[in-house]
Amino acid sequence: MTRTSMISGIRPTGELHVGNYYGALKGLVEAQERYEARYFIADLHSLTTHPKPDQLRSYVIETARNYVAGGVDPQRCTLYVQSSLAAEICELHTYLSMVMPLGELMRVPTFKEKAKRHPDNINYGLVGYPVLMAADILLFKTERVMVGEDQLVHLEIARTIARRFNQLYGDVFPEAQPIIENAGRVPSLAGSGKMSKSDGAATYISLKDDGTAIGEKVRRTVSDPLRVYREEPGHPTVEGCNVFHLHSYFTGEAERETIAEQCRRAEIGCVACKGQLAANLNAVVEPFRLRHARLSEADAVDVLRIGRDKAREKAQSVIAEVRQAIGLLMV
Amino acid sequence: MTRTSMISGIRPTGELHVGNYYGALKGLVEAQERYEARYFIADLHSLTTHPKPDQLRSYVIETARNYVAGGVDPQRCTLYVQSSLAAEICELHTYLSMVMPLGELMRVPTFKEKAKRHPDNINYGLVGYPVLMAADILLFKTERVMVGEDQLVHLEIARTIARRFNQLYGDVFPEAQPIIENAGRVPSLAGSGKMSKSDGAATYISLKDDGTAIGEKVRRTVSDPLRVYREEPGHPTVEGCNVFHLHSYFTGEAERETIAEQCRRAEIGCVACKGQLAANLNAVVEPFRLRHARLSEADAVDVLRIGRDKAREKAQSVIAEVRQAIGLLMV
Ligand code: SF4
Ligand code: SF4
Repeated sequence: MTRTSMISGIRPTGELHVGNYYGALKGLVEAQERYEARYFIADLHSLTTHPKPDQLRSYVIETARNYVAGGVDPQRCTLYVQSSLAAEICELHTYLSMVMPLGELMRVPTFKEKAKRHPDNINYGLVGYPVLMAADILLFKTERVMVGEDQLVHLEIARTIARRFNQLYGDVFPEAQPIIENAGRVPSLAGSGKMSKSDGAATYISLKDDGTAIGEKVRRTVSDPLRVYREEPGHPTVEGCNVFHLHSYFTGEAERETIAEQCRRAEIGCVACKGQLAANLNAVVEPFRLRHARLSEADAVDVLRIGRDKAREKAQSVIAEVRQAIGLLMV
Repeated sequence: MTRTSMISGIRPTGELHVGNYYGALKGLVEAQERYEARYFIADLHSLTTHPKPDQLRSYVIETARNYVAGGVDPQRCTLYVQSSLAAEICELHTYLSMVMPLGELMRVPTFKEKAKRHPDNINYGLVGYPVLMAADILLFKTERVMVGEDQLVHLEIARTIARRFNQLYGDVFPEAQPIIENAGRVPSLAGSGKMSKSDGAATYISLKDDGTAIGEKVRRTVSDPLRVYREEPGHPTVEGCNVFHLHSYFTGEAERETIAEQCRRAEIGCVACKGQLAANLNAVVEPFRLRHARLSEADAVDVLRIGRDKAREKAQSVIAEVRQAIGLLMV
């Protein structure tokens, strides 16, 4: 029985935090068991902002190391870097660009917002972002796409492009359905909002932090603002205490209930409670950190090379079919 | 000594007329002696208008046959079909799309005109036409581009793109200079305007017409409208008589002067004068027609295959350099 095909793009980034772990990463690890899954590190998409070449290269490698350390298994899925299939993706992108109305692209909300904020910095490629994304998807005739809610509009454009292409050239592409990605709402150590790298290293637990760093960051985080003295009872709920909110992700139910009861009776202090959280966080982070340390850059490149070869085979058969459909001469 | 590189695109079309022969074709035949010349049949560009697949394929083959029959020599230049390098061209096109401002593309006069005439039919790829053209050129770091006057704006955009890319990623591309293509002002048999296929088969001499067809078409063409009777003198000038205008392209100077003198003295009738023109036209067309008949479709495909291989070698080295410059990982 062949599995349903699915795909998901991964932004190249140097570091992951535990919020990413409970968000996108876990979703990918689970999906590789159920789908014929392809995951790609989206370096071509990042070119719209002209990243520094050396940084881009090292981010791509680091991203591969991170995701493999986090459980994305090159044996169970196909993990490749987008640019390793640049020839195929860009070729399809060019064909698709011939069937997608410019007006509809310019009405995409994310584009309009960028155009408003940076009116002098709108490249042709930026408005075409959804077309390139459509190429990522259609290159494998993919049936499911794991995306964040904010990408649903782009996926809808990919479906439109598939439909239009099929109308013009015959039934080549399926219309891909979304799988909504776990948004990862792990709260920030700052006490409000969700965990994000953009708020500074003190506000998130990196998947590379060691036990000491985790202990230190958790110690400094805010707990229940209404519990000023150790002798007062706290409010151990997701809303009442940020530390307890974090426990809800990283601490088992039984332990969490004990903490809640002790907190309500002022039998446990915040320092001890944070100590338990730090230990549980470290239990998540440490295996990642160790696997990451064992994966060299060369290992990551090997993984990406295997992924490229697996992905390319399917991609080239689809490209050949597309060329035939639109009437290009096969010389 | 290495020659200066140049490139020119050829629209895929099923048939050429003698106006094309004296226009673009002759220019290409001459340029292959002076430059390291690359000529490509621009099938990717034609996709914006969604040609019928079978027609596109047969036009591409026919165009190759026509140009080789017309003197484009695969030994002296590189003749390839654009889509046979689709992977390389489209990849570069995608990278270039990331550095070219959308606003400037939308201000290109040819685009604005199309957008005005067909507001509902503006595809993303259409506004990107000059970016794809830039990819055609920059893929070989081409120094000279043979273009019609109407393409100068597009070439200017290719130069802009080269400059911007170099600013961001280092000195990779030269800024190509134009060679203005011979516009081919052979007059129409209809009596006004230049020869064009769009005015119907009776208004042009196809390079495939045989002697009988040429004689018939020339016989029906208008001559000097002021010379109503055979006994009257005519006005044998480019402006005065369309037949004489045609003589100025296809008849040698001595013969032409004799005709002019005889016409002014009413010593020659228009029927005889047209007979001489038809013979001279046939002398141009017949060798073409014979060479064309000897070139099979398979021959044309072979020529294009050789061209693809020659072009691809250079293209791939430039692509590798570009990938390196923008920071893509080489897996
Ligand atoms: S003991 Fe734990 S749950 Fe209770 S207020 Fe302190 S940090 Fe929050
Ligand atoms: S003789 Fe020739 S040049 Fe003179 S009017 Fe007739 S067609 Fe024209």
